[in-house]
Amino acid sequence: MQRIPNMLTAEEAAALIRHDDVIGFSGFTPAGAAKVIPTAIAAKARVEHAAGRDFKVGVITGASTGPSLDGELAKADAIKFRTPYQSDKTLRESINAGKTHFFDMHLSLLPQYVRYGFLGDLNWAIVEAADVSSDGKILLTTSVGASPTFLSKAKHILIEVNRYHPKELLGFHDIYELKNPPHRRPIPLVNVEDRIGTQRVWVDPRKIVGIVESNRPDEVRNFAQHSAATQKIGDNVATFLSDELKAGRIPKSFLPIQSGVGNVANAVLGAMGEHPDIPRFQMYSEVIQDSVIELLNAERVSFVCGVSLTLSSTVLQEMYANLEAYQGRLLLRPQEISNNPEIIRRLGIISINTALEADIFGNVNSTHVLGREMMNGIGGSGDFTRSAYISIFTCPSTAKGGNISAIVPMCSHIDHSEHSVQVLVTEHGVADFRGKAPRERAALVINNCVDPSYRDLLWAYFKLTENGHTPQSFRSAFAFHETFLKTGDMRNTRF
Amino acid sequence: MQRIPNMLTAEEAAALIRHDDVIGFSGFTPAGAAKVIPTAIAAKARVEHAAGRDFKVGVITGASTGPSLDGELAKADAIKFRTPYQSDKTLRESINAGKTHFFDMHLSLLPQYVRYGFLGDLNWAIVEAADVSSDGKILLTTSVGASPTFLSKAKHILIEVNRYHPKELLGFHDIYELKNPPHRRPIPLVNVEDRIGTQRVWVDPRKIVGIVESNRPDEVRNFAQHSAATQKIGDNVATFLSDELKAGRIPKSFLPIQSGVGNVANAVLGAMGEHPDIPRFQMYSEVIQDSVIELLNAERVSFVCGVSLTLSSTVLQEMYANLEAYQGRLLLRPQEISNNPEIIRRLGIISINTALEADIFGNVNSTHVLGREMMNGIGGSGDFTRSAYISIFTCPSTAKGGNISAIVPMCSHIDHSEHSVQVLVTEHGVADFRGKAPRERAALVINNCVDPSYRDLLWAYFKLTENGHTPQSFRSAFAFHETFLKTGDMRNTRF
Repeated sequence: MQRIPNMLTAEEAAALIRHDDVIGFSGFTPAGAAKVIPTAIAAKARVEHAAGRDFKVGVITGASTGPSLDGELAKADAIKFRTPYQSDKTLRESINAGKTHFFDMHLSLLPQYVRYGFLGDLNWAIVEAADVSSDGKILLTTSVGASPTFLSKAKHILIEVNRYHPKELLGFHDIYELKNPPHRRPIPLVNVEDRIGTQRVWVDPRKIVGIVESNRPDEVRNFAQHSAATQKIGDNVATFLSDELKAGRIPKSFLPIQSGVGNVANAVLGAMGEHPDIPRFQMYSEVIQDSVIELLNAERVSFVCGVSLTLSSTVLQEMYANLEAYQGRLLLRPQEISNNPEIIRRLGIISINTALEADIFGNVNSTHVLGREMMNGIGGSGDFTRSAYISIFTCPSTAKGGNISAIVPMCSHIDHSEHSVQVLVTEHGVADFRGKAPRERAALVINNCVDPSYRDLLWAYFKLTENGHTPQSFRSAFAFHETFLKTGDMRNTRF
Repeated sequence: MQRIPNMLTAEEAAALIRHDDVIGFSGFTPAGAAKVIPTAIAAKARVEHAAGRDFKVGVITGASTGPSLDGELAKADAIKFRTPYQSDKTLRESINAGKTHFFDMHLSLLPQYVRYGFLGDLNWAIVEAADVSSDGKILLTTSVGASPTFLSKAKHILIEVNRYHPKELLGFHDIYELKNPPHRRPIPLVNVEDRIGTQRVWVDPRKIVGIVESNRPDEVRNFAQHSAATQKIGDNVATFLSDELKAGRIPKSFLPIQSGVGNVANAVLGAMGEHPDIPRFQMYSEVIQDSVIELLNAERVSFVCGVSLTLSSTVLQEMYANLEAYQGRLLLRPQEISNNPEIIRRLGIISINTALEADIFGNVNSTHVLGREMMNGIGGSGDFTRSAYISIFTCPSTAKGGNISAIVPMCSHIDHSEHSVQVLVTEHGVADFRGKAPRERAALVINNCVDPSYRDLLWAYFKLTENGHTPQSFRSAFAFHETFLKTGDMRNTRF
């Protein structure tokens, strides 16, 4: 029954893809994303379009990807629909122009949406691997994402074997696929470091239509460095957590940490690592960034699991040179497990994510600039926030040199409601919403978190609002946003 | 060590309560709510206030309660803060006037908030029981709610033994208390009908300060009867589910149903019971209403579990006359189990809840009238919606004789974001949001769900909005609401 699958060029692989096909690509951030086949599909799309033929494909991934996938396909106008997350400039423009249909999703839900058939049939899984055996055992690379689901559910499989990644990655993945109801059972994970699945993804080898070889590094970008504001946010989070520990509201052994992506997240982890009263901790997270590896190296973090190793090439190369030292201290999981509410709530994860915009009542916008333009997507922030032991959102209190207040009377788009957001932290301080009514929340946010240049304005808004449990003025709720659009500076707002 | 606790009058029990005490009362809906002690506490508050002394208590419950608890305490102005849910007229007025601090919560989170110490110390648990043994085993009545947590966490306990409820309720409760992280383990519930805990709540009998006897029925109100609109909504939901079953997106054995509270929910269950293509099903729900017992009696529902038996006194009396027949077909669980995301996602619950307001992009308001006035609270709707196999929201397309459209350009308050809401159903039809971008969602909602008298207005709004992934106009987002406040009829809106 077994056969050695065909070795193909990327172009030969792309030639198999038809207009309207739906493809599940590997990739959770640029880490582990398919690279050479999507680029070849984009080239095919250009040829088809030049010949006057329709050619677009449905693109499903774990999360965002790199320029060789979302970038190339978007530039070639080859994307029919896109889900669940993206961060590519060209694709974002197409989405915001209403040309590409983008379906923003909680990342933990994507695999079961695919398995339940809610997104239709999956024609292809195109997955990057460090190795593949003739009996269909696939060793993934720097991310797991939703690849196990794509591989099991797709009719046909194409593999990119990327020699950039060593076969010694064997043992760093924990592949566990959920059954559909009514056959689903408890996920047997009770400690951050538990291994519950297999090291490789097992597929029917007859589904593997072709293998393409490549040798391409992950296209991970570097984040901006810490600023004075991000450093202060980090310190505020670390102090808050240390105070909770002292008050006995966090157990003495501490709790696992989830941390979002970006320079604020890096600053928070740095500050936690340096805080003398925070014990060595574990991370049960999504994206593993450079700062996590630093904490692991410094033994401030004892174990980390996540969906992807989204590392700068320097840090990844250092790790690859010394992989053995990380065995037993780091695991990559499917996003359905890393982000699963069952596990997050059971383990008591403390979630720390970045808000694009927050309002005085504690609602958070993670996705839409000025309510209309999609930035990236909700990602895993909702998965972790909603089921966390304590959910924290962080953001610098202002943007664009102070012309934008990140804290507004009413969020221009709401991704996380007041019920899910427990703590808001800016460089100015902390608002702890637990057990607080909306009016109390507003006072906490304005006094503790807002930039001083906006405090009077937000008090003015709060005072002009009419009665009610959640005071608000329909006429003025978006005055900050309208003033910014008109004058370029929210501080010009007059009520 | 054991002692027979003191028998007290309600007044003697109330005399023990001090100003500023925080009390966990039994009650999830009026079912199983404490009755005579809270009424006596309200009387004490009036006496204290008349004497010029402060007297207010913190009131925590499972969910809403009846007039003897929330009503009496609110009328006596004796509530310092209130969480997690309420539905009392006087209390609502006090909350909306900003006098009573109300903290609206997902009901599944309340017990762990109490256990984690996020709401401070709990001085008292005041719990209604059908029976209590001298060694501290408490048989609850028509609801479980958060009583097991209150009983284990409170310093002192007062029990109302209510003879209205028979001791033959033994066997209808399944009491299972979660451990705090890092000691929490998987909840061993894999089928709707699984019993995982004890029949009674076990407490240290030394904590029971007193027992008060009573004989008072639950103060359950009757809901409005079906209308033509609610009947059509029910039919639309039943047809949608039957179509999903045919398409293979729901397994042949069907999936457990959660259904919200009220006349729309009753109509939906009625329609599901009558639909020839929907097999006999199970319910894993929160509030068990009359319509569920009807389906159980008709053997259209094979098993139901929930948090409370919120039945009209006629139906409850019929059940009590024939309790034996319901053993093994009905279980009452703590709200932390009934509403737990771990279980909801594992079992693949189909959730059906009522929206107060929805917008054209699929966001839902469950709580705030015109964005400001708290109605009741989010209740369990977020717990079920967020982790459901398929989440459905229902609402009549209009209210107040057509002067209000339940579907607006932008919700005046958002409790469930676009990411959680999968299907919207009105009497006019169904909008299925799965895999749909915001612009596609808007077209589905306007074409399928909106009342014809509002269709042109909503298209006009959609067309005037500027570009973006989610088109919206800051100036006109709340034009419907502003027009209603000015003219009493949203149909007068002009953009």
